[in-house]
Order: sequence, then structure tokens, then C-alpha cells
Amino acid sequence: MLIREMNEKVCRGVLERASLGRLGCSLNDQPYVVPVYLAYEADHIYFFSTLGQKIEWMRANPKVCVQTDETGGENQWLSVIANGRYEELPEPQYTAERAHARELLERRHQWWLNALAERRTKLSDVLIEPLFFRIHISSVSGLCTVAERQKSQS
Amino acid sequence: MLIREMNEKVCRGVLERASLGRLGCSLNDQPYVVPVYLAYEADHIYFFSTLGQKIEWMRANPKVCVQTDETGGENQWLSVIANGRYEELPEPQYTAERAHARELLERRHQWWLNALAERRTKLSDVLIEPLFFRIHISSVSGLCTVAERQKSQS
Repeated sequence: MLIREMNEKVCRGVLERASLGRLGCSLNDQPYVVPVYLAYEADHIYFFSTLGQKIEWMRANPKVCVQTDETGGENQWLSVIANGRYEELPEPQYTAERAHARELLERRHQWWLNALAERRTKLSDVLIEPLFFRIHISSVSGLCTVAERQKSQS
Repeated sequence: MLIREMNEKVCRGVLERASLGRLGCSLNDQPYVVPVYLAYEADHIYFFSTLGQKIEWMRANPKVCVQTDETGGENQWLSVIANGRYEELPEPQYTAERAHARELLERRHQWWLNALAERRTKLSDVLIEPLFFRIHISSVSGLCTVAERQKSQS
């Protein structure tokens, strides 16, 4: 069993397939990690969320990362990490970007956006207003396992 | 669909079941997240790893977090986060703790320790010497989804 780096093109292919990842943010060098639904496109990863600790932390420190992985049995996995900057997409300044984010995310996460909308209708609660944001990717890297017998082919 | 906090006992139950998580560390307020195999016991979470960025970063800044989650279909998930301090378990100062970590981790991750040992035998490479560490947990919290129809029961 070996671990090797994947090139950027392969890493971006993993991001294209991903619909779930973990978002890492940090405040005063205390890291915080949460699972997130996501949609990757070119140099951005799009997200939606409700207000909470991660949003407050990313507003204070926009240096973030997104990690996603795939597994294929006990001894096979790959993991990709994208570093970048947090950018919130509020109305009305980001109407176009927000619509685009919604469109990308709806393809995979319609059920969840529906659930949020339903709850909002019932409760009129500003805290559950869906908040869209994206990350400007500055670097992408990744690692994957390679079985010993595949080593000479890689 | 609602999201609610889980109490500490429930969160620790999730950690007890977990064998895979994501470790978050941070350097100069840049977060970094990697998938990790883990074993929880009382106030510690135990890990093994080879030398790399996460170890270097945690040596420089021991404030870390571990996140693990479970999903039960599109609209059900729970996520637990443990915050704590990084503590490496080198020989010979931590022989007992290291043996204990190995024992806990071997129950779930024997195949991976075997793979590391096999590679080490072949390559005599110090970089793949398995490195054991643990996190002293300082706080645990978690969130889970609750379907609307379950709300009154919770």
C-alpha cells in the first residue's frame, strides 16, 4: 500500500463528482469542521447554509478549505483538498451569482432547499433564511492510495 | 426538517461508534482538513499516521478538532465535533500510551497497520514509521436533523 499525490486535473475531476464535503474554517487558530453540500464549477465551489458558527467564523476569517473523499473498500481511498477564500453572496449585490449558485446546487440538493423553504414559510425565522456563499479556489491537491501491484502502472 | 443540538452523552455515543473522521488543524489561521482513522475512549481520541503536513501543523499549533458524521438517507444526518489538544505519543516516553493506542486502533484498522508495517519492512523509510497521537478532548457538541413529524416526540 502506497500513498501518492494526484495531479490537479484528477483532483478537479473529484471535485466535479462531489456533492458532499467537509468545510474547514478557523478563528484564532482554532479549527472548525462541518459537513457541507456543495457544487464545484471552474474556480469556485458553491454552498448554501443557514446562519451559524461557520458563517460567523468565515466572515471573520475568510481563509477556508474544503475536503472531499471517495472510498473503495478498506484499503482504497482518495482525498482532495481545495484552499480558498470565502465569499458570501447576499441580495441584492450578488443576484446573478446567487441565482447561479442556486441552479448548480438545485441539481443535487433540491430536497434540502425545499425543506429549508418549507420551514421558512412556517416559522418566518431569519436564522433559517438560506444563505449562499462560494469559495474562490486558490489551490487544489489530493492524495490517493495505490496498491503495491499497481505501482508499476502508475 | 429541523436541525437540533444533541446532548453530550449522545455525541460521545457517536464517537464510540466512529472509526473514520476528519481531523481539522490550522496554521496562521489557514485551516487544513484530512480524513483519519480513529478510536475514541473516554477523554481521548487516538490516531495513527505517517509524517506529513498535518503532523507538522499540529506540532506547531496543537489546537485541533475532529468531526465525524452519520447519514441515513438524503434528509437525515448527524454530525459531531470534538475540540481538543494534540498530543504525540513517541517512544520511549509514551510506551504505555502508545501500546494502548495501538490496541484500540488494531481492533478496527489492523489491515492498515499491517500495510504500513509491510511497507516499512520493504523500504526502511522513516517517513512511513507509524506515528501515534491522541487528542485530549476539551469539548464535544453535535447537530442532527429531525423530521417535522418527529418534532413533538423529541
